[in-house]
Amino acid sequence: MQLNLKTLAERPGLYFPGNGIVTRRDDGSSIRHSYREFDERVRRLSSALASIGVKPGDRVATLIWNNHEHLELYFAVPCAGACLHTANLRLSEEHIAYTINHAGDKALFFSPDLLPLVESIAPRLATVQTYVLLGPDSPDTPLSPLERYDELISRGDQDHVHPDLPEETPAGICFTSATTGNPKGVVYTHRGIYLHSLMLTGIDTMAVSEQDIILPVAPMFHVNSWGVPFAGVWAGADFVMPGTRPTAEVILDLIEANGVTFAYGAVTIGIDMLRELNRKPRDISSLRALMLGGQATPAAVMDYFQREHGVPIFTAWGATETAPVATTVHIKRHQQGLSEADKIAIRVRQGLPAPGIELKVLDAEGHPVPWDDNHVGEALARGPWTAVGYLDDERSAEGFSDGWWKSGDMATVDKEGILRLVDRAKDLIKSGGEWISSVDLENALMAHDGVLEAAVIAMPDEKWLERPIAFVVKTSEAGGNLTETDLIEFLAPDFAKWWLPDRVVFIDAIPKTGVGKFNKRILRNRLAEFI
Amino acid sequence: MQLNLKTLAERPGLYFPGNGIVTRRDDGSSIRHSYREFDERVRRLSSALASIGVKPGDRVATLIWNNHEHLELYFAVPCAGACLHTANLRLSEEHIAYTINHAGDKALFFSPDLLPLVESIAPRLATVQTYVLLGPDSPDTPLSPLERYDELISRGDQDHVHPDLPEETPAGICFTSATTGNPKGVVYTHRGIYLHSLMLTGIDTMAVSEQDIILPVAPMFHVNSWGVPFAGVWAGADFVMPGTRPTAEVILDLIEANGVTFAYGAVTIGIDMLRELNRKPRDISSLRALMLGGQATPAAVMDYFQREHGVPIFTAWGATETAPVATTVHIKRHQQGLSEADKIAIRVRQGLPAPGIELKVLDAEGHPVPWDDNHVGEALARGPWTAVGYLDDERSAEGFSDGWWKSGDMATVDKEGILRLVDRAKDLIKSGGEWISSVDLENALMAHDGVLEAAVIAMPDEKWLERPIAFVVKTSEAGGNLTETDLIEFLAPDFAKWWLPDRVVFIDAIPKTGVGKFNKRILRNRLAEFI
Repeated sequence: MQLNLKTLAERPGLYFPGNGIVTRRDDGSSIRHSYREFDERVRRLSSALASIGVKPGDRVATLIWNNHEHLELYFAVPCAGACLHTANLRLSEEHIAYTINHAGDKALFFSPDLLPLVESIAPRLATVQTYVLLGPDSPDTPLSPLERYDELISRGDQDHVHPDLPEETPAGICFTSATTGNPKGVVYTHRGIYLHSLMLTGIDTMAVSEQDIILPVAPMFHVNSWGVPFAGVWAGADFVMPGTRPTAEVILDLIEANGVTFAYGAVTIGIDMLRELNRKPRDISSLRALMLGGQATPAAVMDYFQREHGVPIFTAWGATETAPVATTVHIKRHQQGLSEADKIAIRVRQGLPAPGIELKVLDAEGHPVPWDDNHVGEALARGPWTAVGYLDDERSAEGFSDGWWKSGDMATVDKEGILRLVDRAKDLIKSGGEWISSVDLENALMAHDGVLEAAVIAMPDEKWLERPIAFVVKTSEAGGNLTETDLIEFLAPDFAKWWLPDRVVFIDAIPKTGVGKFNKRILRNRLAEFI
Repeated sequence: MQLNLKTLAERPGLYFPGNGIVTRRDDGSSIRHSYREFDERVRRLSSALASIGVKPGDRVATLIWNNHEHLELYFAVPCAGACLHTANLRLSEEHIAYTINHAGDKALFFSPDLLPLVESIAPRLATVQTYVLLGPDSPDTPLSPLERYDELISRGDQDHVHPDLPEETPAGICFTSATTGNPKGVVYTHRGIYLHSLMLTGIDTMAVSEQDIILPVAPMFHVNSWGVPFAGVWAGADFVMPGTRPTAEVILDLIEANGVTFAYGAVTIGIDMLRELNRKPRDISSLRALMLGGQATPAAVMDYFQREHGVPIFTAWGATETAPVATTVHIKRHQQGLSEADKIAIRVRQGLPAPGIELKVLDAEGHPVPWDDNHVGEALARGPWTAVGYLDDERSAEGFSDGWWKSGDMATVDKEGILRLVDRAKDLIKSGGEWISSVDLENALMAHDGVLEAAVIAMPDEKWLERPIAFVVKTSEAGGNLTETDLIEFLAPDFAKWWLPDRVVFIDAIPKTGVGKFNKRILRNRLAEFI
């Protein structure tokens, strides 16, 4: 029997019909759909896709926040044999258009607040034949043909029977930012999502359960919101969807009001929640865990949530290429007696490979590093849900080797087998959970007449954890006339606003490595001199 | 990446090397192997199989109790590309020989106490080329060639690398008793066991965890001890193996001495444990759950363990054909507030399909019964780990339909989707967790010159829950000369001792159905008149 998302989609409507999905609407009210309704809506939507020209094998894009419509699309599109590309609305317009074109998406579903964005990129979209707008509005727009989501649902057949699909059928596509150039696409099959979801129900991994009320803070356009929507629907858990642009305030109010048991998102949102709780206390004791990811969680944050609210912080490691969970933190039986501080020292590490994942950390010569928590190597992972290449992309050769994903993350392993990242893919900057490519910024800067060399690195930031800082060597011609403001304005048309460096520092020379590459390590070590 | 038992086998040695397996030895002492040692022993054993002529694709039989050697074979044989047939040592000699011949087993590994059994069946074994004896003894025996297990381990290579195998490679074979005739074989693939194991780690199913100390009471020759050894090794759980012919006394002593968190076995053993605890109290509060299966668990037993020891009883439904877990009992979120008695009323039912399993209950016309807990139909199941046929057996056509396993169990479904069995495969008798074929006994009885007709049904039994009782119509010739003792002596040479009916009742006629079949329902209704 083939591993198929219809198996996941159909279970809660049969066995947990009263559980369901609460979505926060833009006016602050909320709407609830039971799984009985969800099941019906998924069948309607899936059967209606043909009416907008979406056939098995086609791809469908979304530019949507976390809400019930997105969850319906998560199942309706793959169950019809098509493939859901959850486009990342936080990318630059250029990159969003690139990903939609590269995936060859035939339809684009989008949230109403993103209408200006969609109108702006539409002229660049080569394959999109239909736009589908969520919500009740019928705006005046040049997008054409424009369908309304609810009309599509009405048009569909609630008794539609999902076909049995071969398990290797593509079900989803997510793009990951690259150190240079365009984002790279990763395709997830029905089989891969099925296996990843089953793993997430494991008591020693994420323990996704029917007992849960799950609040996904991680966007559904970020590696399928870590795959939890699939696992949660299968388990029959309740969801609380935070809707458009949720703030820490919104998230905390939703946790308190709905008795949320499990919330997860970027480390930065965890820090925002901490600050907001200090400003205005809430009861978040219903949380069995708060899962933070994307980058290392500070021990002080873990300590705060555990001590003040009795909420343990779960962490994990992975990436778009690993669907994403490759490791999860697990306190071993013989470690259960440790003090809370010692457990946090384990929790801030990246953990153990999930069942099904194989991990190796290789030194520069390709040999496994000793498990001494000292020797550093690159972490590689493989498993039945990890990618083995990028979608139609020659960069696959760099990112994968013999079925293994080369993470670019430098790590140690301790004697317990626990992974610890010591240096991420060294040139990327992670701002508020989003990647910024330093190389892209450098190339753009160096396109300016007055710039000789430019190197961009991360500088620490209280809110976003990391922000880009640019080091620039002027040409001899430029002299005193070239200012920081000039360069930011020069970059602005080509990048999302939050990609723009917070600081531009003019220096005499960029330090170089032996082979003539920029030596960013030296810049990082000297960062304190400049900020 | 292929789903492969090597993934399960290799994980605990890497990440939980200090956890491991305690085995009770025949002298009452125990021996412990860490997963570091287990990993080494599995590699040694797997690599040494070639030295006794076992090649990829071959089959290997075991007649072994629950111990570390059996657990090593569970992984060493499939990881070498061969297939492990865990022969059921409780079958009649004739049936054991049949299953070994039908599977075409090339080697037979056996526990030392079973030497007389193996010597007795050896002349009938057509394919076995090597016998492998566990334990330190070197008995005087005609079995030849006879290898010793420990010598095989010594001979092997501890650095052996398990090959990558296609996931559809057969990994295991178990036989299930048939209503008539020889047992039927079910083949499990690497893929099927992998998926079943991952499901068992689910927090809403069996929640098999690294935190567990697991005592498998269910024999490892019964549907792979319900698949728990595979899931437990993958999770890195500790095992306490009860060894040869464990009694309730032994099991309770092991639970108390080892702080066992999870034990599981037949309902009859649960009842024995209850009696033994009343005789001699033990502290079994370390148990997070006791799982009972094979037939319905009496509510009084559930109530006792919950009330007296704080131990919840888990139950499930399935069979050899479903590897075996098809449903598990799950108290839904909205049912959590119920009284303990109301929860037990849920727990005595058969539960909800495990993630991945599809279930339907069909009436005589093949339509799904309404979910009213009243209409009765046959339960059918399918999923990625369920069988779709028997091994080289024309009875597959009766047992399966279009990928669905036809359980022969009559059931209802309530409005919560919870399965409840109302009548098992109606003619089988389940004595102490073992099936007895009424039809086989009837056919044998009717082979006696003095017997005209014979019908065998189950009668309730305090210890074994069910025991066979035979209703016999004598021929007119036989008259007063034929006695109960005559018939039991007549059957004895052809059956295991525990298959023999406890009672033979002579009656004037067997009631018949409209189409002339024995009407056992009428006999069951009149049972009280005879016992």
